[in-house]
Amino acid sequence: MHFTVIARVLGILLMLFSLTMVPPMLVSMWYDDQATQAFAMALLIIFGIGFVSWLPVRRVRHDLRTRDGFLITVLFWLVLSLTGSFPLMLADNPGLSFTDAFFESLSGWTTTGATVITGIDELPKSILWYRQQLQWLGGMGIIVLAVAILPMLGIGGMQLFRAETPGPIKDSKLTPRIAETAKALWNIYLMLTIACAVSYWIAGMDAFDAIAHSFATVAIGGFSTYDASIGHFDSAAIEMIAVIFMLISALNFGLHFFAWHNKAQALVHYVRDSELKFFFFIIAGGIVLTVPALYLTGTYGWQESLRFGIFEVVSVATTTGFGTADFSVWPIFLPVLLFMMAFIGGCAGSTGGGMKAIRVLLIHKQGVREIRRLIHPNAIIPVKLGNAPVSERVLEAVWGFFALYVITYMVMMLALLATGLDHVTAFSAVGACLNNLGPGLGDVAAHYGDISDAAKWILSLTMLLGRLEIFTLLVLISPAFWRS
Amino acid sequence: MHFTVIARVLGILLMLFSLTMVPPMLVSMWYDDQATQAFAMALLIIFGIGFVSWLPVRRVRHDLRTRDGFLITVLFWLVLSLTGSFPLMLADNPGLSFTDAFFESLSGWTTTGATVITGIDELPKSILWYRQQLQWLGGMGIIVLAVAILPMLGIGGMQLFRAETPGPIKDSKLTPRIAETAKALWNIYLMLTIACAVSYWIAGMDAFDAIAHSFATVAIGGFSTYDASIGHFDSAAIEMIAVIFMLISALNFGLHFFAWHNKAQALVHYVRDSELKFFFFIIAGGIVLTVPALYLTGTYGWQESLRFGIFEVVSVATTTGFGTADFSVWPIFLPVLLFMMAFIGGCAGSTGGGMKAIRVLLIHKQGVREIRRLIHPNAIIPVKLGNAPVSERVLEAVWGFFALYVITYMVMMLALLATGLDHVTAFSAVGACLNNLGPGLGDVAAHYGDISDAAKWILSLTMLLGRLEIFTLLVLISPAFWRS
Ligand SMILES: [K+]
Ligand SMILES: [K+]
Repeated sequence: MHFTVIARVLGILLMLFSLTMVPPMLVSMWYDDQATQAFAMALLIIFGIGFVSWLPVRRVRHDLRTRDGFLITVLFWLVLSLTGSFPLMLADNPGLSFTDAFFESLSGWTTTGATVITGIDELPKSILWYRQQLQWLGGMGIIVLAVAILPMLGIGGMQLFRAETPGPIKDSKLTPRIAETAKALWNIYLMLTIACAVSYWIAGMDAFDAIAHSFATVAIGGFSTYDASIGHFDSAAIEMIAVIFMLISALNFGLHFFAWHNKAQALVHYVRDSELKFFFFIIAGGIVLTVPALYLTGTYGWQESLRFGIFEVVSVATTTGFGTADFSVWPIFLPVLLFMMAFIGGCAGSTGGGMKAIRVLLIHKQGVREIRRLIHPNAIIPVKLGNAPVSERVLEAVWGFFALYVITYMVMMLALLATGLDHVTAFSAVGACLNNLGPGLGDVAAHYGDISDAAKWILSLTMLLGRLEIFTLLVLISPAFWRS
Repeated sequence: MHFTVIARVLGILLMLFSLTMVPPMLVSMWYDDQATQAFAMALLIIFGIGFVSWLPVRRVRHDLRTRDGFLITVLFWLVLSLTGSFPLMLADNPGLSFTDAFFESLSGWTTTGATVITGIDELPKSILWYRQQLQWLGGMGIIVLAVAILPMLGIGGMQLFRAETPGPIKDSKLTPRIAETAKALWNIYLMLTIACAVSYWIAGMDAFDAIAHSFATVAIGGFSTYDASIGHFDSAAIEMIAVIFMLISALNFGLHFFAWHNKAQALVHYVRDSELKFFFFIIAGGIVLTVPALYLTGTYGWQESLRFGIFEVVSVATTTGFGTADFSVWPIFLPVLLFMMAFIGGCAGSTGGGMKAIRVLLIHKQGVREIRRLIHPNAIIPVKLGNAPVSERVLEAVWGFFALYVITYMVMMLALLATGLDHVTAFSAVGACLNNLGPGLGDVAAHYGDISDAAKWILSLTMLLGRLEIFTLLVLISPAFWRS
């Protein structure tokens, strides 16, 4: 481990992050909302920590290796969530406790969108901006993680994408190519954000809301500047724009990258992607089940069933977590169905959470193969994606991921039950956090403000496990990692 | 497919099964409980059906092949559950509807032990005997299925035991060796039953209760002749005997078979078995978590915490489902913890349900391997059981099984929610039936009498899926099975 280099990297990261206090500070000054000082102080403190971490090791140079990648990735999210909590504590409103501020900040950085704050409508504009911006920055982080770093580390079968997607690094060093890849991805991310913000603005949001919600949309974050979320605007046009951009953001950014650089072949490339097809198949299936169920149970009329049904399915299945209707009180199986869709989640290489469509597709294919093998015990039946067979190594990694996901889910649920939460709340809170979805059912349907501090810390860990695809964290607590 | 041979086999089976009406008929005459006629009629009808099925094809001879094995296995449980429901409909008490009688009979045959009957204390003695006997016969079926047939069919990685356990068939024909294996296993099963019954009797049960409960114990069935289950006796001695025989019955009968024929090496063989060690480790872990939790939450004093804690952990973890305390109202995480242990279940080749300890052990080992692979990407790391590497083919089958188990669980839960059950009831009822455990939480904590007929049919399918390890049924609905 090259701790000195890690300290240098994190130091630079914190100094850069401190500069992101400037936009909310300007917002605060513009609206004169009394939070300017909090952001100024946060800027100084975070810059200071970064500077102190960087200064003594600023001349150290080492090639970083895979192993350092695990540690940097985890520290990246931890350190940013920790320091990102400062403004939320320093500002008089909301003036959160450390636990609440850390939860909120981590929820932003992991693009989960679970909130502990109840009176969102009464927050200073600058704090509202800051929360949205955290998600947007978290989305930037996750794209690079998902497209470039996880495939390189080989987490949960994501090495599958090493050969397939353009840009990612193919050797085992953290070379400058990550910087190139990151820049290219961020360009796309920025363009998507601008397109989304402009669309929202044209559809009737004011500039502030348009930008703020575009941040949370492309990041699949789900934070809003209103307690009523997207439902506040009560506009079918805005909802349709949100649906489109949530879907685009839930696709593999490697695909967007390719399409951007090969515009002639762009459509063909999208259409041929197995994961994309499976993802849209799942979304369509969810809508086909949900909309008639809403109508037949008399929950809404036809028009509203269609409008609310499509929006909530896309919002939950992509793990965004925006709300226009409270799906947690929808009848019979609908809340649980939507919740299960969040377990599938977005595509790999997107800002979405969940297990990722590609993994669920591979699990499905393996299940079908097992049945065929029972009928033809001696046949050799490869699992294919498109026309290419998937290596057994990748399949095993996917299985390992799936098993760990289920086990993590159960352990965290037991831990939450031990803090005294009821079954439905515990069941859904773990799912909402592990899948980086946000809203749950029961006591956490609207917000996470009423649960105990212990539960908040358990759920913080759960959000981080989900965002870092479990293995990245688990590797760090394995003795073998530190030994050799 | 050799349908004529299948008809002959099932005909013989039904004629044999009709004879099992004699013991409850004798019980009915002895206690003069008004149910004699019902059993006599059932005997005639079932024998008649069997005879009609057998007569036209009685001279047909074909070697049965693997493919026929799937169909016979499923029809075996279906036909017996169907005809086994006759006495429960024909007798004035309980005089069940077809749905209820089928559910109760299937629950017996699959050794699940979920009951739709509320006033068990008021049932005729012969009906009580009959329910226990169904479980005992179901246990006989499952041992042969688990030790000889599933490994031959290669279900969910159970081909692992083809080489390891003595007795099972190694070629692909359903040869007479199955009959030999079955006889040897049933000898052990019978001896265990007698030992259990005598122990219960010495500990204070009357002869009827002792035999009746020994049936449900070695079959890991969980039916009782009292509404209060084993709790009725309020005897620590009886509970201890139940614990011991539940644990023995949850071990691989292939091990018992080997031990019986190699008495000198018996102990060594048990001690060396990886699955057995893992199974006891899980049980011990459950007890270590449960007993202090019961005491510290003030649910019981130390003595009762120990007594009820150990009993319920063993009863639920082995998937027996006997009760001495209502664990569904235990505090915090305990009901869910116990429930999760039932998902692990007994050992492969036992009468226990759940996913089986060996599969969970292999999943755990694969998870650990994935973490080691992340640290050493180029190392070749085999998954070992004892000292022998496990083939990738077996591991893949185990993964396939695990995925299907989880998917089946979710689909069945959605289906139950669609019938209007609440979350906790649906969540636990599916678990209790898929794992062949019996009692659930919520509305099905005590019995399944109050849920809708639709829910009962869904749960019937779930019990069958669990008992036949999902694949056996799924293969039948795959078009490829019927095509070639
Ligand atoms: K989210
Ligand atoms: K049972």
